[in-house]
Amino acid sequence: MLLTVIFYIGITVEAMTAALAAGRRNMDWFGVCLIASVTALGGGTTRDILLDHYPLTWVLNPYLLLIVCAAALFTVAIARVAHRLRWPFLLLDAVGLVAFTIIGCNVGIEAGHHPIIVIVAGMLTGITGGILRDVLCNDIPLVFTGELYATVSIVTGTLYYAGLTAGLPADLVILVAIFIGFPLRVAALVFRWEMPKFVYDKDLR
Amino acid sequence: MLLTVIFYIGITVEAMTAALAAGRRNMDWFGVCLIASVTALGGGTTRDILLDHYPLTWVLNPYLLLIVCAAALFTVAIARVAHRLRWPFLLLDAVGLVAFTIIGCNVGIEAGHHPIIVIVAGMLTGITGGILRDVLCNDIPLVFTGELYATVSIVTGTLYYAGLTAGLPADLVILVAIFIGFPLRVAALVFRWEMPKFVYDKDLR
Amino acid sequence: MLLTVIFYIGITVEAMTAALAAGRRNMDWFGVCLIASVTALGGGTTRDILLDHYPLTWVLNPYLLLIVCAAALFTVAIARVAHRLRWPFLLLDAVGLVAFTIIGCNVGIEAGHHPIIVIVAGMLTGITGGILRDVLCNDIPLVFTGELYATVSIVTGTLYYAGLTAGLPADLVILVAIFIGFPLRVAALVFRWEMPKFVYDKDLR
Repeated sequence: MLLTVIFYIGITVEAMTAALAAGRRNMDWFGVCLIASVTALGGGTTRDILLDHYPLTWVLNPYLLLIVCAAALFTVAIARVAHRLRWPFLLLDAVGLVAFTIIGCNVGIEAGHHPIIVIVAGMLTGITGGILRDVLCNDIPLVFTGELYATVSIVTGTLYYAGLTAGLPADLVILVAIFIGFPLRVAALVFRWEMPKFVYDKDLR
Repeated sequence: MLLTVIFYIGITVEAMTAALAAGRRNMDWFGVCLIASVTALGGGTTRDILLDHYPLTWVLNPYLLLIVCAAALFTVAIARVAHRLRWPFLLLDAVGLVAFTIIGCNVGIEAGHHPIIVIVAGMLTGITGGILRDVLCNDIPLVFTGELYATVSIVTGTLYYAGLTAGLPADLVILVAIFIGFPLRVAALVFRWEMPKFVYDKDLR
Repeated sequence: MLLTVIFYIGITVEAMTAALAAGRRNMDWFGVCLIASVTALGGGTTRDILLDHYPLTWVLNPYLLLIVCAAALFTVAIARVAHRLRWPFLLLDAVGLVAFTIIGCNVGIEAGHHPIIVIVAGMLTGITGGILRDVLCNDIPLVFTGELYATVSIVTGTLYYAGLTAGLPADLVILVAIFIGFPLRVAALVFRWEMPKFVYDKDLR
């Protein structure tokens, strides 16, 4: 299944970029593995806790933890050349974002949730890992300030859900969602599309 | 029902003050909506996850998410005048704190929990949203350092639970809890009542 | 039961060191109690949420919250002499780490989880409280940078699980795990054993 392949690519890439974030904070190898696990698997975990969807993916399939830690430690080994991989990382991360969104929507759909919750489930799967990474690294989450990311997830999820609801075949809808969501994210990166910022400098409290 | 009306006022006000906090960190509109959602609905969500009380309020009623995001974006639109609304915000927030506490206690009572857990459930509902907001904005949670806030929630919850246990009518107990909890919070703001601080500057670790 | 006694020692010590961390941030007494509760009970809580193991320990036994808060406020009272207690704290914390790990493994074993998840459950119980403390105090979690801590938990959990699987009597296995895990942590503190750090200073994003 295409989605499964992309899922593994997605968690591997998220683990690798998380390892670099941990390295920027001089964490030890254990911290690198933990940040990688939280980043790669935290989105789905958050979604499943909020929707009471147990057992969690990695509890059912603990080898995911080993894959993620292996990817993180591999990143430590190749760190000297990692900065040359900026674009491959960003492109694979974009693929992962779209795949995570679709997988998350599926969880919401199978549990019979409201369309809004389906799309939120997709978005949480796509973005929460990165938020948890940034909180643990003591940063303001990047997703709140950078190029369009959550928006890509919402657009992808909406298209996907609308396509399924319209009765189109699932495989076709997945492909359409990927072929719209992925270029949208890439375009946001290339052209630096950002959401408008809300800059407020009054001291209310 | 009075509590329902106050609940909607409470989440609206929490969303608006959270939006201003996000603006102080120059977040984009998506970040503003997400911080607002976490702040307004995170208290009840945390309570429900800890007490295994599913489905979550906003999963059952997803329009709450739309209300919260609408309140947040409305705040962006009126940001120029928001600093004049300091006192209205603080007063409505105090009403919300008391209402959230009572709603949280009810969840604990209905699940048959121990009195301590009932009061903790009320307090978590009242204060956790603000803690999550401050963690995501990379601040030390305000509730740990500012004027009496959690204390107001604990006093309100204790009164409410004691009143119900004494067999008084629920509507009366709600009104009494509001008419004691609300002025207590306002007095804490006006007279800058704070808990004693624990200042420790030795380097243990 | 030995483990129960050590469990109470462990949460008391975690509450006390958490109170000092809160004092270093000038938090008020409420903040001190909340940080202490999250630190002492947050590891088991995180484990139970991830493994869908309800009700939570402290919901079932709310007096744990009172013990933790009492230990925290006692720490405030003796803060003047607390810096002399560095080594007692570290030693008792090491005992607690090992006990928490064993208790966490037991939860995983009783639920019939995969060996990897059993060891992860033990580790989460041992280390997550400290991570939550550091996030709430706006620090990068110490466990990602300091002397061997999570590693001790993983070694202890692995020994414990292997011993049980080999059919040895539970009491013996507990004692062996404690008498290997505890000196390992102490040695790490004395000889400053640390995991290798991953230092990465290229700007990927």
